[in-house]
Amino acid sequence: MTKTKLIYQDSLDWKGKNQNVLLIYDEILKKKYSQFIAKFPRKLSVQSGEALKDLHQFPQLMKTITEILSGVPKDEIEIVSFGGGSVGDFSGFVASIYKRGVPFHQIPSTWLAAIDSAHGGKNALNVGTVKNQLGTFYPANSVYLVRDVLTNISSERVLEVLGEFYKIGLIEGGKLWENMKKNPTLDPQILWKFLPKLIAAKMEVVKKDPFEKTGHRQILNFGHTVGHVLESANNLAHGTAVLYGLKFSYEFGRRLGVSNKVTDLDWILPSKQDLKEQLKKVRHPETYLSADKKTTAHQKVHFIFMKTPGQMIRRPVSLDQLMEEWKRQSR
Amino acid sequence: MTKTKLIYQDSLDWKGKNQNVLLIYDEILKKKYSQFIAKFPRKLSVQSGEALKDLHQFPQLMKTITEILSGVPKDEIEIVSFGGGSVGDFSGFVASIYKRGVPFHQIPSTWLAAIDSAHGGKNALNVGTVKNQLGTFYPANSVYLVRDVLTNISSERVLEVLGEFYKIGLIEGGKLWENMKKNPTLDPQILWKFLPKLIAAKMEVVKKDPFEKTGHRQILNFGHTVGHVLESANNLAHGTAVLYGLKFSYEFGRRLGVSNKVTDLDWILPSKQDLKEQLKKVRHPETYLSADKKTTAHQKVHFIFMKTPGQMIRRPVSLDQLMEEWKRQSR
Repeated sequence: MTKTKLIYQDSLDWKGKNQNVLLIYDEILKKKYSQFIAKFPRKLSVQSGEALKDLHQFPQLMKTITEILSGVPKDEIEIVSFGGGSVGDFSGFVASIYKRGVPFHQIPSTWLAAIDSAHGGKNALNVGTVKNQLGTFYPANSVYLVRDVLTNISSERVLEVLGEFYKIGLIEGGKLWENMKKNPTLDPQILWKFLPKLIAAKMEVVKKDPFEKTGHRQILNFGHTVGHVLESANNLAHGTAVLYGLKFSYEFGRRLGVSNKVTDLDWILPSKQDLKEQLKKVRHPETYLSADKKTTAHQKVHFIFMKTPGQMIRRPVSLDQLMEEWKRQSR
Repeated sequence: MTKTKLIYQDSLDWKGKNQNVLLIYDEILKKKYSQFIAKFPRKLSVQSGEALKDLHQFPQLMKTITEILSGVPKDEIEIVSFGGGSVGDFSGFVASIYKRGVPFHQIPSTWLAAIDSAHGGKNALNVGTVKNQLGTFYPANSVYLVRDVLTNISSERVLEVLGEFYKIGLIEGGKLWENMKKNPTLDPQILWKFLPKLIAAKMEVVKKDPFEKTGHRQILNFGHTVGHVLESANNLAHGTAVLYGLKFSYEFGRRLGVSNKVTDLDWILPSKQDLKEQLKKVRHPETYLSADKKTTAHQKVHFIFMKTPGQMIRRPVSLDQLMEEWKRQSR
C-alpha cells in the first residue's frame, strides 16, 4: 500500500509545477479560495454530497474529466481533491481507475475529511440506495493539512466531527485519551493541535489491516452501527450521530459485561435520556440496521464494543439481539 | 500482485461449492453450455463487444448485479467470467471495484482471451470514443483453460488470434519461435498444445512491469500501433490486423536499420503488397494514430521494433515520422 505523505501547511498553496494536474473542488469553496483555484489550468467544480457519489452521475462526470484531460500524456496526469468526504471519495475513486490509476492528492476542507476520511485509502460510490457499494483501496500520495483552511471553519461545525474525535481517542486510549479528557471544550484551534495524533491513531489501525482482510480495521466502526441509523433516520450530523452510537455501544457493553465502567464517559457522551429520545424517534430501525433488505434476523453483524479505552472487542451480534437492545435503551 | 492460478481442464466444469458466485457470461454461449450455466444460481448474461465496455451502460448493469447479489455477505461473493475479451474486461473491472474487490475467475471462450487478454490483470471500460480509458490492474485469482471449449472453436476463428500468436513468439524468441516455424499451418489442436508456452511468455513480460511503470510491458504492443488502426478503419479481425502491424514494424525497422533480416518472416507475415493495400484503404490514418485528437505532430509515441526474435526495442517516434513511414509503405 502506498505510504501517504502528510504535509502540514500554514496557508493554502500549491507548489507543483505540473500544469496538467486536475483539481476537483467543492463549488462552495470557489469564492473563498478563488486565488488558489485559479492556479490550476485544468479543474472541475462539483457539488458535494451523496449525489456526487451516485453511480448514475458518474458517466457524465467521467466524460467531462476525459475532455478536460484530453491531450495530456498519462504520466503527467495527477488528481487533486479539494473538499470534504464526498469530494475525496469521488476524486479518489476516479484517480484509482483513470487510465488504471494516476497519482492522487487530497486537501481536506472539512474536519471530518481532515481527521478521518482523507486517510486510509478507502473511497466509494453508491449504487442506488446501496451506499459505498463500489470503490477501491487507493491511498492518496499526499494529504495536505492546511491550518488556515481548517481553523477558518466555524466553531459550530466542530459538532460534525465530535463522534470521530472521541472514537479515535477511545480506540487509541493512553495519552491521547488522557489529553482529550483535559479539554472539556473543543474548538478549531484545539482540534488543529490534536490533528497529528488523531491521524496517527487511525493509521495505526489501518496499517494492521489495510485491505480489510482480517477484520481488525472494523474497530474503526466503533459507534457507527447505530450512528449510521441515527444519521440517516434523524438527519443528524455524522459526528453527533456517532457520539450517540458510542453511548449505545457503551451501554450495550455494560449490560453484557464486556465494557468496564469509564466515569469520564458520563460527561463526554450524551446522556441515556438524550440517546433514548433519539432512538425512539426512529421508525423501523431494523430496516436501517439490516442495511440490506435481505439480511435475516439471525444474520450477524460485527459489533464493536470497548472493554476499556485502548481495548476494543469485535463481536458478532444478530439483528435480533441488536433490536432487543435497541428496545431496551429506548425504554 | 495476485499470482493467477492456471487451471487446465479437459471439459467444462465448476467444482466450487460456493452458491454465491456470480457468473457473468456471454449470451451466445447460453445454448451450447446450458448445463454448465445452469449450475450457477446467480448469473448475468451479457452481450459481448465494445458496447459492454461502454461506461454509459455501466450504472444499469451495476444495478442489476447489486440486485442479483443482494443479501450475500461480502466475504462470500466471487465473480466468474465466461466469455471472450470484452466479457473478461467488464467482469474483471466489476470484480475489482465491487465492495472494493472480490475474488475473480476467468473461463476464456475465445482464443484471444485464452492466449492474451485473460492474463496479466488489465481490464477496462470505454468513455465515449476513448477506448480503455478506465480500468484497474486486477489479475484473476484463477484462469480456467478448458480444452473442450477452446478446441470446439471453428478453425477459421484461429485467424482472430494469429497476430498475437506470432507476436508473442517473436517477443520470446528461442525455442518458442523455433517451434512456431515448424508449424506452417495452425488449427485449434495445435494452438491448444502451444497455449501453456504462449501464456508463460506473456507473463514473463508482465511480471517485469506488472503496473506499466517502467515501460517494459509496452513491448506487448508490438504490431499494435498500426494494427489498431487497420482493425478499426478496415474492420479486420484483431489478430489479422496485428499481423499487418508486425509486418509494418518489421519493414519500418529494416529501413531504420534497427531490425535484422529474418527470412522466415517472409512467409509468416503478409506480403508488402498486401500490407500496402491495407494501408492505402485507410482515410486519414493520422486521426487514428493520434488516438487523442490533441496529440500534436511532434508528440512521440513509443513504437515497438524487433531487433531479432527475442530482442525488442522501444523507441519514441513522432507522429510525423510515423506518417512519413505510412506513406512510404503505401507507395
